[in-house]
Amino acid sequence: MPRRIDHVAIIVRNIEQALQFYRDTLGITPKVIKEVPGEQVRIAFLPLGGPEGSKIELVEPLNPDSSLARFLEKRGEGLHHICLEVDDVDAALDEMRAQDVPVLDEQPRPSADGRAFFIHPKGAHGVLLELVEVEKEQEGV
Amino acid sequence: MPRRIDHVAIIVRNIEQALQFYRDTLGITPKVIKEVPGEQVRIAFLPLGGPEGSKIELVEPLNPDSSLARFLEKRGEGLHHICLEVDDVDAALDEMRAQDVPVLDEQPRPSADGRAFFIHPKGAHGVLLELVEVEKEQEGV
Repeated sequence: MPRRIDHVAIIVRNIEQALQFYRDTLGITPKVIKEVPGEQVRIAFLPLGGPEGSKIELVEPLNPDSSLARFLEKRGEGLHHICLEVDDVDAALDEMRAQDVPVLDEQPRPSADGRAFFIHPKGAHGVLLELVEVEKEQEGV
Repeated sequence: MPRRIDHVAIIVRNIEQALQFYRDTLGITPKVIKEVPGEQVRIAFLPLGGPEGSKIELVEPLNPDSSLARFLEKRGEGLHHICLEVDDVDAALDEMRAQDVPVLDEQPRPSADGRAFFIHPKGAHGVLLELVEVEKEQEGV
C-alpha cells in the first residue's frame, strides 16, 4: 500500500545546530525550513535521491510542554518516526482500523506536507509510523 | 555528499513476526531475506519507491551476546539506524575523520549491500548513521 518512504524524522534541540552537521559536514542541502502551524515545532526537510527519494526531517519542539519536548527530555536527540506516503490516507486509516492496528489519530490531520495519521509503536514493532497523503503542490518537496 | 537514503533499519525480535505487520498488514513486499555473514543477524529488505527509493531493513539478532541483541534487550524493538548511500565510502570515511566526526569503524566493512561504516550517534545528534557504498550487482535491491 505505501508508495515510498516520505521521510525519516529526527528530533533535535535546535535545528541550526543540527544543520551544522547534516548540512555543513554531511553536505545535504535543506529545501524547507519552517514552523508547522498547530504542531508547535520547527522543521527542516533535507531531501535526498530525487523525486522518489526520501527526506530527512529535523524536528525542533517549540513548546516545552508538548509531548515532543517531553520525548526529547526523556530520550535525548535521535530517531523519532518513519513516514510512508500513501495515495489515499482516508482509505489507509480505514484499512488499519479494519485490521485492528492501533492508531493515534481519529481522523487524518494536517501535517507538514499533506494529511497524515500515526500508527502506535505497539502496532508496528516499536516504530512510530506516520502515513501521509502528500498534497499535490508539495510533491517532490 | 550522500546520494540517497539507502535504508532505515528496525531491530526486531523475529523477522517472520515483524513481516506479519510490514508485509501482510501494510502490504510491503520483501525483496531480500537473508543471513549476513559475520554480523550474526538475519535481515529483510522491504524496498519502496523504485530504484532511487529507500528500503526498510528489518534486523533480527541471531547471537544473544552481540551488541545488537543487548540493544534489543535494553530498548526493545524499534528504530535502529539510518543508512545513506555515498559514491565512495573510503573518501567519505576520510572526510568524516578530517572533520573530527566520531566513527565506529577503522575501515569500511562488508555490509548487507556493499561496504559501509558507522558514525557514532554523538556525532549525528543522537542518530546512528551508516554510510554505504553499494555494490554494483546489488544496486536497486
